[in-house]
Formats: sequence, structure tokens, C-alpha cells
Amino acid sequence: MLTFHKTSNFYESGYNEAIGEKAFLQVKQECDSGEIGYYTLPTTSLNIVKELEQYTKTNKSLIEAKNIVVIGIGGSSLGAKAIDSLLCHKRDNGKRIIFFENSDPIDIRTKLHDLVKNNTAIILISKSGGTIETISTFKTIVSHLCIDFNSIDASRVVAITDPDSILSKFAKEYGIKEFNMPSNVGGRFSVLSAVGIVPLFLAGYDTKALLQGADEFIQSFFNRSQDHILQKAYYHFANKDSKPINIIFSYSNSLENLSKWFVQLWGESLGKIDKNGNSVGLTPIGLTGSVDQHSFLQLIIEGPKDKTVTFINIDDFEEDIQIPELSLKHIEKTDYINGNSFNTLINAQCDATMQSLIDSGVPSDKISLSVASEQNAGSIIAYFEVLTSLVGAMLEVNTYDQPGVELGKNILVKKFQS
Amino acid sequence: MLTFHKTSNFYESGYNEAIGEKAFLQVKQECDSGEIGYYTLPTTSLNIVKELEQYTKTNKSLIEAKNIVVIGIGGSSLGAKAIDSLLCHKRDNGKRIIFFENSDPIDIRTKLHDLVKNNTAIILISKSGGTIETISTFKTIVSHLCIDFNSIDASRVVAITDPDSILSKFAKEYGIKEFNMPSNVGGRFSVLSAVGIVPLFLAGYDTKALLQGADEFIQSFFNRSQDHILQKAYYHFANKDSKPINIIFSYSNSLENLSKWFVQLWGESLGKIDKNGNSVGLTPIGLTGSVDQHSFLQLIIEGPKDKTVTFINIDDFEEDIQIPELSLKHIEKTDYINGNSFNTLINAQCDATMQSLIDSGVPSDKISLSVASEQNAGSIIAYFEVLTSLVGAMLEVNTYDQPGVELGKNILVKKFQS
Repeated sequence: MLTFHKTSNFYESGYNEAIGEKAFLQVKQECDSGEIGYYTLPTTSLNIVKELEQYTKTNKSLIEAKNIVVIGIGGSSLGAKAIDSLLCHKRDNGKRIIFFENSDPIDIRTKLHDLVKNNTAIILISKSGGTIETISTFKTIVSHLCIDFNSIDASRVVAITDPDSILSKFAKEYGIKEFNMPSNVGGRFSVLSAVGIVPLFLAGYDTKALLQGADEFIQSFFNRSQDHILQKAYYHFANKDSKPINIIFSYSNSLENLSKWFVQLWGESLGKIDKNGNSVGLTPIGLTGSVDQHSFLQLIIEGPKDKTVTFINIDDFEEDIQIPELSLKHIEKTDYINGNSFNTLINAQCDATMQSLIDSGVPSDKISLSVASEQNAGSIIAYFEVLTSLVGAMLEVNTYDQPGVELGKNILVKKFQS
Repeated sequence: MLTFHKTSNFYESGYNEAIGEKAFLQVKQECDSGEIGYYTLPTTSLNIVKELEQYTKTNKSLIEAKNIVVIGIGGSSLGAKAIDSLLCHKRDNGKRIIFFENSDPIDIRTKLHDLVKNNTAIILISKSGGTIETISTFKTIVSHLCIDFNSIDASRVVAITDPDSILSKFAKEYGIKEFNMPSNVGGRFSVLSAVGIVPLFLAGYDTKALLQGADEFIQSFFNRSQDHILQKAYYHFANKDSKPINIIFSYSNSLENLSKWFVQLWGESLGKIDKNGNSVGLTPIGLTGSVDQHSFLQLIIEGPKDKTVTFINIDDFEEDIQIPELSLKHIEKTDYINGNSFNTLINAQCDATMQSLIDSGVPSDKISLSVASEQNAGSIIAYFEVLTSLVGAMLEVNTYDQPGVELGKNILVKKFQS
């Protein structure tokens, strides 16, 4: 379960119902027309789970692999990584997902080091099939593990790509298992498509519960049971010039990659030239508590009042640890914390920091996950996706493209081809 | 060696020499008067290295420990973590530094899991001695490892704290080795004090080279051989309202923690109420390339032009990896990259992205580390510290305090004591 702690400064600042309703209708229309596909992934992706259940009955090498290598970047890795980071401490199946994202030689070398073929599944993710980091890394792993596509090795590989892409043609050539990204789902909204479902399924997560959590949230939004999200979207829109920086302050290391996923979603979706030719956008920042109370909080409290903060916490960590009843000579003044649990401490720190921000006039709210679970992961993903779509609709931008990144790609290709 | 790639938009935009010289003189005066101590750490900390060399000759348990546990938060961990992340792939002594920073029960439990006493050194860092995350974690580790301070166990512990703090008294009580933070060095400027030197020395790094790299940079700044830094500081100051967001875009995963260290330095030093009672400050963001080209670049290119970007790259990764001469059927269009190295690719991506930003009118520059080395780590740390001091002087804030974080701490203590 998610609990939304709505505070007055975020939710009651002159909500404009006309703008809110217009955005709601646009989002509903995007969904109903099928123009944008992520709204229906929680139901359509159940077929992917079924297909995986069937396929892995006969193809044991995939499901028995202890190392699940994911080669992908941006929207092709951040979502699965966020969910894996949140939940991996609850798995005890000895599997690990290894994300090859960056073209960093040290990172690649380190991760290659203990890979062996007969224990590895490879999931290659690229919409176009031509992402340079992804294909370069794939070639390196193929070479390192001596993979022969004309042999049984091909059954260790899964390709996730657009239908008819060059990667799709490659997969068909060698009988490699292929899943497609729906054409109406962009990379950063694709975590609940095969992009996230395949690696998470192979790692042993309950992907049905993940989809169910997202489905329930989206249904409840369209059933008008989550109208607080319209108010929050409106606040971000109305204060885009005075509060252009939006912070996610997550109180657990396990949520750090959820923040990174959010940063892409928010930054890349809303940072656009709008229909009037103006540069608009909101700048996302991910922080981790309590650590970043000691690095960034000073700036939020005393610096320019150009920020909003959404706290995320986990009410019950389930695996807790107690602060011992230990009194250290001369340090007795810290004894007030003895006998409490770290679960209690970190959540108290979250609340104290939020209170200090509210007292300092910084718009703040909090989303609590009852526990770290697939269901809650699905819900919070759906929440941020819908919030992003609503703000995009209000800003009158194309929330779903990213034309600005092409320039650098073209410069790069010219460097190597000249 | 550091190379500064100065671009016209960052360095030639109406530099005001009077303001630049005034800031230079203030910084020089801070240094010469001894009011601010970080400028002289590169020489004074050589005594810490000598002391460690002596002490560990007789106390073998510290120097032979494979697990070096650092318990500290914010300025007490970020600096050593940044340097360790940059250089750890070059060590082959089997040691690891384990940073206990957060009050996250899952994180603490995971890190405790494979600690055993007879293989562990514990470095406890807290200026005041009362930092609640730090002391709570220390108590937990003491209890977990069954440490008895009245035994030889005490020789496995090092305390780094203010002179006369409660932690200092505790250390003296049990004959625990103690190093002090100079009273004129704040936490976020303390990496070259015992705070960073002790863990890095025990892990086997060349701390003398680290200090030398910093010393050379600071000397060269005061000798007026680095005046480009005045121009850059002035640009940040003069454009504080139009470019309030400053990005460090580091092209290697190994630089990610250097960005986090910078984020604290910049955010906490400059986010202040100035002498006229106004909230001022600049918001730092750390990005990692090439990954974040696929998550954040769109916002920088097409979103509001409120950002500056400083790229950091490593010219020679030393341990490189080649992209194989492998042509995959149907994916031949990526063959242009074959035979190149990832070292070449990632640096070409850095340059292409920087060029695309310059073409889009985003002020950008680049700092290149010739290699990942202690010397270069020292130099770049000194560079960012001096830059921060200069901008702080221009903004007329107290660069070295952090009064804004007290409110949340007080609310927290009341929660537990009521």
C-alpha cells in the first residue's frame, strides 16, 4: 500500500480545476485511443509473464542462470534496476542481475571478470537496435564468452527491441527469443513492458504482483480516487518558474535507483521546446536520506526557495536491526536512541527533515511504501508516470519524445566515420 | 596532470577583474591568517602520514586489516569515498573500505554480514562526537563484533574528531588512537585531513602523492598560474540568477562519488543567507556519462537555459578493453566502432556531448585527468575547493558553516526524548 501524506503547501495552493480537468481528459484520451501505451501495460504485459512461464519450461538455461546480464541504457535499464535495488535483499535464490549500461572500460572489465557462459543469461535491449554503447558491449560479451549464435548458445540470449528493427532481424536470423517494445511505449515509460518484466521474471521476482500494483493505481486514478495527483501536477505546472527544481528525497539506499529512474522520467519527458517555441522543463534531483541531510539540506533550507521536495520512505523494512543498549563513556548524551531500531530512526529522521522544510516554507510531501514489495513498486512507478503525463499535458509539450539528444549522437558518428 | 579545456562561453563573458581580485585577496587572506585551514592541509597532513607510518609499525592489526570500516557521514565519508572509487581498480592488495554512512537497516545489515573482528579496522569519524547516525552505527558494530574496549580490541579502532569533543574523551579513556580535525577545517573541506588520509593510508593508497597533487595546485593558484579559476568563479557569481544549476558530468562510473563529494561542497557551502539577509546559492547536480546522455541530456539541451556543465574525463584509463572486430548480421551499421577501444569511445562521447551543448548555447567546459592517480585526485579536489571559496567570497556568504541543518536535528532529538 502507498500512503500519500499531503501537506497544505503542495496541495491547496489555488488549484485550477479547469486546467486539472483538461489534463485529466487528455491523459484519458491518450489511454483510450491507444496513442500512448504505458497505461495498459499492467494488463497487456501479463501475456509476457505467461509467455515466459511457458518458454522457460522447455528452455531451462535461461531460468537456471545465476547471472542475468542486462545490456541496455537509459530507459532500457533504469526501471528494472530501480525495482531490483528496492527488492533484491528479499531474494535468496543466489541470482544477480548485472547491468551493463556504460561505455566505461573499467566498469565493463570489472563486470566481465566473473562471468562464465554456462551460468549466464543475456538480455539485450535496444529499441532501434543501433544504440552504440549497447551493441559495443554486446559484441564484447559475445567475444568474451565465446558465444556461437549457430549453436545452443543462442538460447541463452533474449532480444528486446522494436518490431522490424535491425536487432529484431538479427534475432530472427539465429532463432534468438525476441520480445518487442510496443510502438506506443517510449523507453522511459517501458519498465512494465518486456524491458523490465523479462529480467525481473528471470531473477525470480513476482512480476504479476508488480503489474497488479501498477494496474490498481492506474484504475484508481481513472476512477477519480487519486485526484490529489491532479492538484500536485497543477502545483508543479503553476510554479514551474518559481519552483523549477523538484527533489525526490528517498529514505533508504534501496530507493536510490528509483530516484534515478524518476530523474530520467521527469527530466527527459518535461524538458522540451513547447508548442510556442519556448524552452520549458523541470529539473529533477534524487537525494538519499539520511545521508544527504549532511550534504544538500543546508542548500534547500537557506538557499533560494526554488525547490519542491517529495519524500519517499518505507514504513516497515521487515529486516530491522536494533541499536544496542550500550552506553559509551563520555558519549552518554546519545543514549536517548538506545533500544530503538534503525527502522524507527531513519523514518523519524525523514519526518523531522520534512517538518524542518515545511517550517522553512519549502513545499514538501511524502509517499510511504508500507513495505518494499513488487506490488508497491508497481504502484509508485504508475504514480510517477501518471504525474509526469499530467504535468506534460499542462505544459503543452510532447511528453514522449526526446529530439534534443540526436545532435550529440550525430557528432559522435561523424567522429568515427570521418 | 589536469588539463583545463576552457571554452569561450564560460571564460570570456565580461570578466570583472575588480570582483575577481577582491575574491582572490579574501581567499589569500583566509589562507595567510590561518582563519581557514584547508589550504595548508597538503603540507600539514604530511605529519599524519608520518605518524601513521610510525604507529602501524608497532600496531600491525590496523595495517593488516583487510576490511577498513569507515563510520562517518557527509564530509566525514564523501571525500575518502570519492578517491577510493576513482582508484580502487588499481589496488590489488585485497583490501576494501566499507563506508557505513546511512541509518538504513538493510544497508547496515548487509554490510555487517561478512565482517569479522580479527580482519577489521574501525575508523570512527565525527567532529562533535554526537552525530546520531554515526554513533548508533558504531554501537551496533561494537556489539556485533563483541569489541571490548578494555582489551587489545581497542587497537583496532581509530577516532577522528574535534579536540576535546566527547568522542575525544572516549578515545582517551580507552587508549584508542585519536586524530583531530583542525578547528579551522570544516567537514566538507576535510578530505585531506586525517578524515581522508587515515582510511586511504590504511587501504594502501599513496597519500603523499595525493597531498602533493593538492599542494601543487594550491601553490600554482596563489602564484597566479591558475587565473582561469577566477574567471569561472566570476561567471558563476555573475550568472547566479540566470544559471543557478551547475552540473558536473563525469565520464566514468569511477568518478560518480567525486561528483557526490562536489555536490556537498558546492551546495552546502554556497546555499546560504547572505549578509543582506537574502537566500542565495547554486544548485549542484552530478551526472555520469555516457549513461546520463540517455536520461538528462534532453532537459539540458531543450529545457530552460538555467544550467552550466563541467565535464570531467580520464584521458587514459590504463586498463582498456577493445571492441571486437565482430560484424553481426543485420546490425552491420554499427561496425564503424569495431576495433576501437572503450577508452576512445567514452571520451569521444564526452567530446560529442560537450560540442552539442556548446552548439545549443549551454556554457560548458571540461577538466581532463591524464590518468586516475592519487596526484590527480589531489589536484582536482583542491581545484573544486578553491573554486567554491572564490564563489563564496563573491556571493558574500559564510562558505564554511551550515546553520540550516540544525532545525531538523532538534526536531529529531525532541521526537525521541519526549
